[in-house]
Amino acid sequence: MSSIGDNVVLTVFGESHGPVVGAVLDGVEPGIEITDEMIASFLSKRRPQNITESARKEPDHFQIMSGVFNGRTTGAPICILIPNENIRSSDYQQGVARPSHADYVAHIKYKGFEDYRGGGHFSGRVSAGIVATGAVALKALEDRGIHIGTHILQCGSVRDNNFVDIDTEISLLNSKDFPVISDIESEIIDEIIKAKNSGDSIGGILQTAISGIPAGIGAPWFDSLEGAIAKAIFAIGGVKGIEFGLGFGFCDSNAKGSTVNDQFYYDGECVKTKTNNNGGINGGISNGMPIIFNTAIKPTPSISKPQRSIDFIKGEDITLEIKGRHDPAIIRRICVVITAMTAITIYDLIR
Amino acid sequence: MSSIGDNVVLTVFGESHGPVVGAVLDGVEPGIEITDEMIASFLSKRRPQNITESARKEPDHFQIMSGVFNGRTTGAPICILIPNENIRSSDYQQGVARPSHADYVAHIKYKGFEDYRGGGHFSGRVSAGIVATGAVALKALEDRGIHIGTHILQCGSVRDNNFVDIDTEISLLNSKDFPVISDIESEIIDEIIKAKNSGDSIGGILQTAISGIPAGIGAPWFDSLEGAIAKAIFAIGGVKGIEFGLGFGFCDSNAKGSTVNDQFYYDGECVKTKTNNNGGINGGISNGMPIIFNTAIKPTPSISKPQRSIDFIKGEDITLEIKGRHDPAIIRRICVVITAMTAITIYDLIR
Amino acid sequence: MSSIGDNVVLTVFGESHGPVVGAVLDGVEPGIEITDEMIASFLSKRRPQNITESARKEPDHFQIMSGVFNGRTTGAPICILIPNENIRSSDYQQGVARPSHADYVAHIKYKGFEDYRGGGHFSGRVSAGIVATGAVALKALEDRGIHIGTHILQCGSVRDNNFVDIDTEISLLNSKDFPVISDIESEIIDEIIKAKNSGDSIGGILQTAISGIPAGIGAPWFDSLEGAIAKAIFAIGGVKGIEFGLGFGFCDSNAKGSTVNDQFYYDGECVKTKTNNNGGINGGISNGMPIIFNTAIKPTPSISKPQRSIDFIKGEDITLEIKGRHDPAIIRRICVVITAMTAITIYDLIR
Amino acid sequence: MSSIGDNVVLTVFGESHGPVVGAVLDGVEPGIEITDEMIASFLSKRRPQNITESARKEPDHFQIMSGVFNGRTTGAPICILIPNENIRSSDYQQGVARPSHADYVAHIKYKGFEDYRGGGHFSGRVSAGIVATGAVALKALEDRGIHIGTHILQCGSVRDNNFVDIDTEISLLNSKDFPVISDIESEIIDEIIKAKNSGDSIGGILQTAISGIPAGIGAPWFDSLEGAIAKAIFAIGGVKGIEFGLGFGFCDSNAKGSTVNDQFYYDGECVKTKTNNNGGINGGISNGMPIIFNTAIKPTPSISKPQRSIDFIKGEDITLEIKGRHDPAIIRRICVVITAMTAITIYDLIR
Repeated sequence: MSSIGDNVVLTVFGESHGPVVGAVLDGVEPGIEITDEMIASFLSKRRPQNITESARKEPDHFQIMSGVFNGRTTGAPICILIPNENIRSSDYQQGVARPSHADYVAHIKYKGFEDYRGGGHFSGRVSAGIVATGAVALKALEDRGIHIGTHILQCGSVRDNNFVDIDTEISLLNSKDFPVISDIESEIIDEIIKAKNSGDSIGGILQTAISGIPAGIGAPWFDSLEGAIAKAIFAIGGVKGIEFGLGFGFCDSNAKGSTVNDQFYYDGECVKTKTNNNGGINGGISNGMPIIFNTAIKPTPSISKPQRSIDFIKGEDITLEIKGRHDPAIIRRICVVITAMTAITIYDLIR
Repeated sequence: MSSIGDNVVLTVFGESHGPVVGAVLDGVEPGIEITDEMIASFLSKRRPQNITESARKEPDHFQIMSGVFNGRTTGAPICILIPNENIRSSDYQQGVARPSHADYVAHIKYKGFEDYRGGGHFSGRVSAGIVATGAVALKALEDRGIHIGTHILQCGSVRDNNFVDIDTEISLLNSKDFPVISDIESEIIDEIIKAKNSGDSIGGILQTAISGIPAGIGAPWFDSLEGAIAKAIFAIGGVKGIEFGLGFGFCDSNAKGSTVNDQFYYDGECVKTKTNNNGGINGGISNGMPIIFNTAIKPTPSISKPQRSIDFIKGEDITLEIKGRHDPAIIRRICVVITAMTAITIYDLIR
Repeated sequence: MSSIGDNVVLTVFGESHGPVVGAVLDGVEPGIEITDEMIASFLSKRRPQNITESARKEPDHFQIMSGVFNGRTTGAPICILIPNENIRSSDYQQGVARPSHADYVAHIKYKGFEDYRGGGHFSGRVSAGIVATGAVALKALEDRGIHIGTHILQCGSVRDNNFVDIDTEISLLNSKDFPVISDIESEIIDEIIKAKNSGDSIGGILQTAISGIPAGIGAPWFDSLEGAIAKAIFAIGGVKGIEFGLGFGFCDSNAKGSTVNDQFYYDGECVKTKTNNNGGINGGISNGMPIIFNTAIKPTPSISKPQRSIDFIKGEDITLEIKGRHDPAIIRRICVVITAMTAITIYDLIR
Repeated sequence: MSSIGDNVVLTVFGESHGPVVGAVLDGVEPGIEITDEMIASFLSKRRPQNITESARKEPDHFQIMSGVFNGRTTGAPICILIPNENIRSSDYQQGVARPSHADYVAHIKYKGFEDYRGGGHFSGRVSAGIVATGAVALKALEDRGIHIGTHILQCGSVRDNNFVDIDTEISLLNSKDFPVISDIESEIIDEIIKAKNSGDSIGGILQTAISGIPAGIGAPWFDSLEGAIAKAIFAIGGVKGIEFGLGFGFCDSNAKGSTVNDQFYYDGECVKTKTNNNGGINGGISNGMPIIFNTAIKPTPSISKPQRSIDFIKGEDITLEIKGRHDPAIIRRICVVITAMTAITIYDLIR
């Protein structure tokens, strides 16, 4: 289903080639100041921007349809629409199963009635609704002193630094169009251009930090903080893995309890841990340290190199060359989607 | 909260040192044949078994309290209780925050009223209820031709093979007490004993396969198959990462769209992919290939080496030596918990 | 929150004096044929129509924004917008608590940030979204042979017949603008005009029938069919009571088990009951007989007679004369809202 | 499904003739003082007590299995079991559809695998779990100054007074075994004995008051306070109608907006209404006045008079004389079930 959350519920709708994509965010507390600039700025971060990204123009002339009155949230559901413009539906036809795309599974699940143009409801375009409403959730969190930022940790052989001085780095990342901590923007762009020039694509690892979250958020067992964040992040197309703190690094051959346990200590009145290998979460619950997680994004499946696949309408094997306007890498654009989805999830949990 | 699922709802309850742990599984279809042997055999797999595991005896004299009549499920909720025996509560006192354990966050969340004995409701002991009801879910799946198995993929420097001949390997794993595919049991036990002898602990990566799942299960966006499985698996204590198919391997420097995309082809009438790098899932929905995922388990936080920490009742830093009976590694015992949790999740989605 | 349903989820949004009201219906199966006429016709039934109803013009130029492609549902969420036109916001000011209206409680719940114009998100105007998406749900049910109709059973001292020949009567009601079974339209209009002429308002009882519903829908305890319908119907403004079958008539002094029990019999292969005092539901589950329920609608609280009340901004008692354009009775217009809400609820349960 | 609630989740399980009935209440805040006496006293109110009620002995030797430690709730799920004793299963056989009972619908829904003994999971016996956990919820509410009481408003031709001095009357009702406000106990017992002596049964109307509830609880549309209470109350077997405040009285021929609207006024700083015809709820949200609702209970369907019905195993019409031990009226016993279910619902909403 296209909804998530208990106290703050996000619903998305729309298709890549329909009139709009949009989202409803319900459960937002009354009185949060909302400006068009805030949402526009957030949306601009997921828009194709440079030579490495899709040529589809997405001006994102969004409109707030409900839930905001006199510049503040009212407590009623907030619906934001983003019209689809610059559509070229002729690039698509039903039956061609692009490898590692959802065309085939959409056809099975929706029994042949799916809107197949540009991925339909599966299109990354729908994430514009998540970003627009995520800006609202993030504002509500920032009013509470909680901040969230995401950067490209790894792309090809290029690796960014881990978070160290988290609040400063989050602030830096949110001010940049190309979210990296160290000075590696051009190296990453080189990696992407290299993939693009060979008609190929590339993925990467994104790292997200949440600062200012108090201890005690989450629950043992099924409403663990890790589970809530993971469920939300796997909603984003292209995500194939998530790890908290050291994550898979906990399984390195030299990782032992004595080397990876986070020892508690008092910093004045405040409880902290000397290391933060658990990414701020013990037993499914925040411990007051920043929450840190990494997300694995697979290479964009749309590539221009010829591929073998099937036409499930004709029922035959084919060779396929994908046309249309596509990104050789979505890792930059997806950072703000992850930040938005994280903001909505954390807001749901603390509301 | 201690419930999960939409169509099949699992609720767990109980504390490590209370009279019982237990679970209610609601929404199971009527008519599934259930035997005590099936549940007992499943429970035996999570019981401490050998020199590398906790000395706590857990005979697991479970009792089915409802929902089964004349050896078959009735459609009403199934409650299974497992009495706690062989309890030594004196090993525990309130205030000591074992590093990387939930003692401190439990204290914050439950405002000082937590049952702190042996981790209380956070204890891995509660997973016995998951395993007992998971046996019911797995039986319902097997009646539909869906099979699930989990093995230790990596422990320390020892690595098992990936799944290849999945149905055969699942069947093999479910017949073994020590779930590995290749002949590496003694090497893993050596790794664990090495950790134990130095008063330490070790983690590992577990790999799970689901075979026989039809195409079309899951949804785009928030009810993705990856998200549903991830939420369920992160409920299990010690889990810090999950990846589907190649997972973080999609971000290796040599991974490109052209090398990792799974190309579709017709095998007779049947649609398959030549590789299964996506772990059987496209766009959040099963594509008919086996589902494969890996889970990262951190080293057991309870170690006998001295550690620095705090006493949050006294409000002071302390040096701590953990007593009680603990496992230097839980990776073997946790395999059946992951299989059970996966079975309950998949059953919820196809019910 | 502004969402309802498990398998089919309805979300409403919008304010009386915002740009639109709208709804998202998620979970609708793919392939249902949808026409604009079907939705327009349904919307026209809740529009003010005659001298007894509000002078606010509601042309309801709705637009389907998603989820329908080539005239059929796709399986993706369906968003329908209905622009607000003919708005006169100057009729409203914050602080005046209209008696038996939501102004005061909205102020408390939304901490002063509520959109108070015309009731904001509480306005009956929002039900246009329910009606538009309800037309889709009803079409999905009718494709399965399930039909739903609602008529005015009582208004003032005028009483309509109970349902007798249900399928015929449902068909008749859905073809009429003024939904009554017997020839009492002018008598009811007289009652309403009488109230209107004295600056007053009037309520009434509505009766709804669902035919063609198979036995076995619903559940014991918390997902009873009565509970699901009641929760949905109480969402509609003005509803203050609901009863199934005989309802409160079960408590008449001459009602005994022997006189009100519905005796089963075989009509060929088919199980029926001789009477249908239980309104088609036993133990929370449909028994194959038509479902019948009555809804009590209170008199419209907006009346033009002077009333005593408070101004909660000024903090003082006031005398109030309500201006604006209001209905002396909403019982005719609310019939289609109840039918729509019932359709969405039943569709959720059988999907 | 057998669960209800969002923040506080109740799950029931068990069958009339299984080893236990029970309930899990999850989400209760930590630190609520719980005594066995409190639960025992609550359970005693639903136990058969006098000549007018079932001869089945239900000693209700309940046991708290989890979630309470050192006499206080811990925040973890609370499981309470009540063993079934004094069972006579031989009174039941599969196939006989007792009129207005759930035997037939259970058979359809559970495909022949239902536990048919004594109504199985549909049995009113399961409500003992609701009452036991409801005592916990009520304690949590009382600690907040919220009180709940239920009395028999009408039975046959005998009618009790409406609530007037609510806090005093709630306190009185909760101290009595036979919950009526005025001195009509013997008249009601006469009505019941009259029904019993003719092998028949009788229903009645129950009235419930909630005092001390602050303004602002509930929501417009789908999470209305009326809808939440109605869904919960319809979970109880025998309930066929519910109305808030005047309820169906709003549709009397002399009820007009001007006569039934509740006018607001300031009582010092406090906002009140002169009348409480809306039963404390406007727009789905509490307005600070006491919440009042009435519930219609149908005559117990089990009567000893011969009835016509079917045997759905044999597939034939039959004449049936119900044996076993049954109540000619359950209205007294059901009062505490309604109070418990209301407490759990309100606690869920304010938690």
